[in-house]
Amino acid sequence: MTFATHWQACPTPTAPKHLNATFVRAETATINTMFAPLQNDTFLRACLRESTAHTPVWLMRQAGRYLAEYRETRAKAGSFMGLATNTDFATEVTLQPLERFPLDAAILFSDILTVPDAMGLGLSFAIGEGPKFAKVVRDEAAVSALAVPDMAKLQYVFDAVTSIRKALNGRVPLIGFSGSPWTLGCYMVEGAGSSDYRLVKTLMYQRPDLMHRILTINADSVAAYLNAQIEAGAQAVMIFDSWGGVLADAEFKSFSLAYTQRVLSKIHKTFNGETIPSIVFTKGGGLWMSEMQSLDCNVLGMDWSVNLAKARAQLGATHALQGNLDPNVLFASPEQVTEQARAVLDSFGQPHQGDGKGPTHIFNLGHGISQFTPPENVAVLVEAVHSHSKAMRQK
Amino acid sequence: MTFATHWQACPTPTAPKHLNATFVRAETATINTMFAPLQNDTFLRACLRESTAHTPVWLMRQAGRYLAEYRETRAKAGSFMGLATNTDFATEVTLQPLERFPLDAAILFSDILTVPDAMGLGLSFAIGEGPKFAKVVRDEAAVSALAVPDMAKLQYVFDAVTSIRKALNGRVPLIGFSGSPWTLGCYMVEGAGSSDYRLVKTLMYQRPDLMHRILTINADSVAAYLNAQIEAGAQAVMIFDSWGGVLADAEFKSFSLAYTQRVLSKIHKTFNGETIPSIVFTKGGGLWMSEMQSLDCNVLGMDWSVNLAKARAQLGATHALQGNLDPNVLFASPEQVTEQARAVLDSFGQPHQGDGKGPTHIFNLGHGISQFTPPENVAVLVEAVHSHSKAMRQK
Repeated sequence: MTFATHWQACPTPTAPKHLNATFVRAETATINTMFAPLQNDTFLRACLRESTAHTPVWLMRQAGRYLAEYRETRAKAGSFMGLATNTDFATEVTLQPLERFPLDAAILFSDILTVPDAMGLGLSFAIGEGPKFAKVVRDEAAVSALAVPDMAKLQYVFDAVTSIRKALNGRVPLIGFSGSPWTLGCYMVEGAGSSDYRLVKTLMYQRPDLMHRILTINADSVAAYLNAQIEAGAQAVMIFDSWGGVLADAEFKSFSLAYTQRVLSKIHKTFNGETIPSIVFTKGGGLWMSEMQSLDCNVLGMDWSVNLAKARAQLGATHALQGNLDPNVLFASPEQVTEQARAVLDSFGQPHQGDGKGPTHIFNLGHGISQFTPPENVAVLVEAVHSHSKAMRQK
Repeated sequence: MTFATHWQACPTPTAPKHLNATFVRAETATINTMFAPLQNDTFLRACLRESTAHTPVWLMRQAGRYLAEYRETRAKAGSFMGLATNTDFATEVTLQPLERFPLDAAILFSDILTVPDAMGLGLSFAIGEGPKFAKVVRDEAAVSALAVPDMAKLQYVFDAVTSIRKALNGRVPLIGFSGSPWTLGCYMVEGAGSSDYRLVKTLMYQRPDLMHRILTINADSVAAYLNAQIEAGAQAVMIFDSWGGVLADAEFKSFSLAYTQRVLSKIHKTFNGETIPSIVFTKGGGLWMSEMQSLDCNVLGMDWSVNLAKARAQLGATHALQGNLDPNVLFASPEQVTEQARAVLDSFGQPHQGDGKGPTHIFNLGHGISQFTPPENVAVLVEAVHSHSKAMRQK
């Protein structure tokens, strides 16, 4: 079964394409009988640089170990992959943070490494350790054996997307995601996380031809994967270039950015008449702002090292900005959390108001939330972002 | 014994201060009967933005595990600290890379964490692991107990400096160094390396007052430590802000940069009539170029993520630039090493030529050399830097 026919056979929403492909979420949702109409479109509007009544907020890794209820579900599932591959469990944990906090978006519960797993590399997570692959890709033979995986192997992800979107019942939009081609490549060559990226960089510097072949396959796989998530119900997609920042300047452009752009050039910009915003987050990529500005995406994610005022001044209004509180702020007192959240909002400054498009901000952490975070400080954070960003708009 | 009287009692070079405090190395070295005259001043001249016949090159961690002779000496010493605290061993390993490669500078063999060790925190290195401290500084009581250490506890470092300078016999200049106040603070709070800096950032966000107290003590300790190294014979000093890059934008300025500047404001700019250049290297600090430009140092070190052409354009000629080849390039073929070394030189472009001062470049890696590096590729690198940088000057 080819990729295309597989997708034709899938139980994804197939409402007729809206004639006017502009951003008409409400109407489309009515047409689309599979999912409830969206009640809170703040996140999607901010992604598209439209005005909102407050600055939307969600947190990378918001469904995770800092929540007791997550740890309970995780224990029932037996393993991380047991959790990610079970539709009910994945749905349950995705919604857990929304039960506690008035977040403005949900993000699919999954891992960035599902795609290389589907390529046959054998992903596993040992307790207390990071991800590991049973097979690694370090030579010509291993590279030759690589191919865009049959998306049927990732059906569990798409089923989770559809299930979560239904369970959300229109409360907030659902974000799908993938690792970037380069970030997936790092893990595929190293076989695990790394402190120096010696193996993947050795391959990159010694055999750039092989590295480019891996990255081309990764980019095409990620594009197919994100498109399938969109077809299954994802309302926005995010590409995590978690390891782009470890590259040298020239190599970042040719081995990371170029393949992120290849993904962006292949993914759905609209689906079922709805605009599907895309977000690119390069951890440690702050000094390549002007290079990233060339990306055909809607939002650029920033880690905490970036000054949002400077980034906004540099970028103008080509992209919305997402970020960028240091997750470690959440270990301070509630008053300090509030103060730091306000500082991030003030650093971005007044977002676009009124009609048309202009500079907008989506509040987030600069990286994933720590497993040791006190959940009560997350409540404080979300409240601070909502109230301060509303107050800013009154000025 | 106070710090000052201790230093008056030390057997450091005490040649009369040259009346004209400009850069008059050759004459001063003659005055100074303790050390031989300097034969290769390329590195020092480039630090001071003076023209040189070639671009000087040295490598961070050039005396290290990638050399078989280092591993032999290390085995004799029994432990890393056994190596660092023994004057003969420290001298031997510092000179080892110079026996193999025509490097333009030597750097004291030591560790960045000797200062907190002298504060009584108990530094050790387990085989195959990073540094560990027996005591940590995480609360008010531990911070209250901190003080600038008696420099007598670091006498082994200053003895090594004098011994190495003598053994160098004027071949190339000797660089002394220290960790930055912030980087030392990271280890003092965390007790070891960290992947998320949760403990030190928790303290910083919760109790900025305590963090500032630690950093003030660290800055004053580092200044005393570097001054003592200069008095013992170091001809340039480098501050390694290895963990400055993990900070958020505002916190980098107040918790890292401000204390690096405090050190710089207190260290000898000249000694015995010789100008003592200072280098600041912030790993991951490329996006704070304009902030770092305010530092009262001679050279800014850059990691590989920085585009040297852009950095030069941004900085003008206020500071010499040092860097920035990705150490992983040294795992490629000799031809590729040569090509990448040339690309770094070409990226900086033609350095200042003729009289006066202008933009200059000191070639280095963007971080320490890997223990797995084939030494023959280091020979290729040094040759490529020397020959290509000479050829560039003929254009």
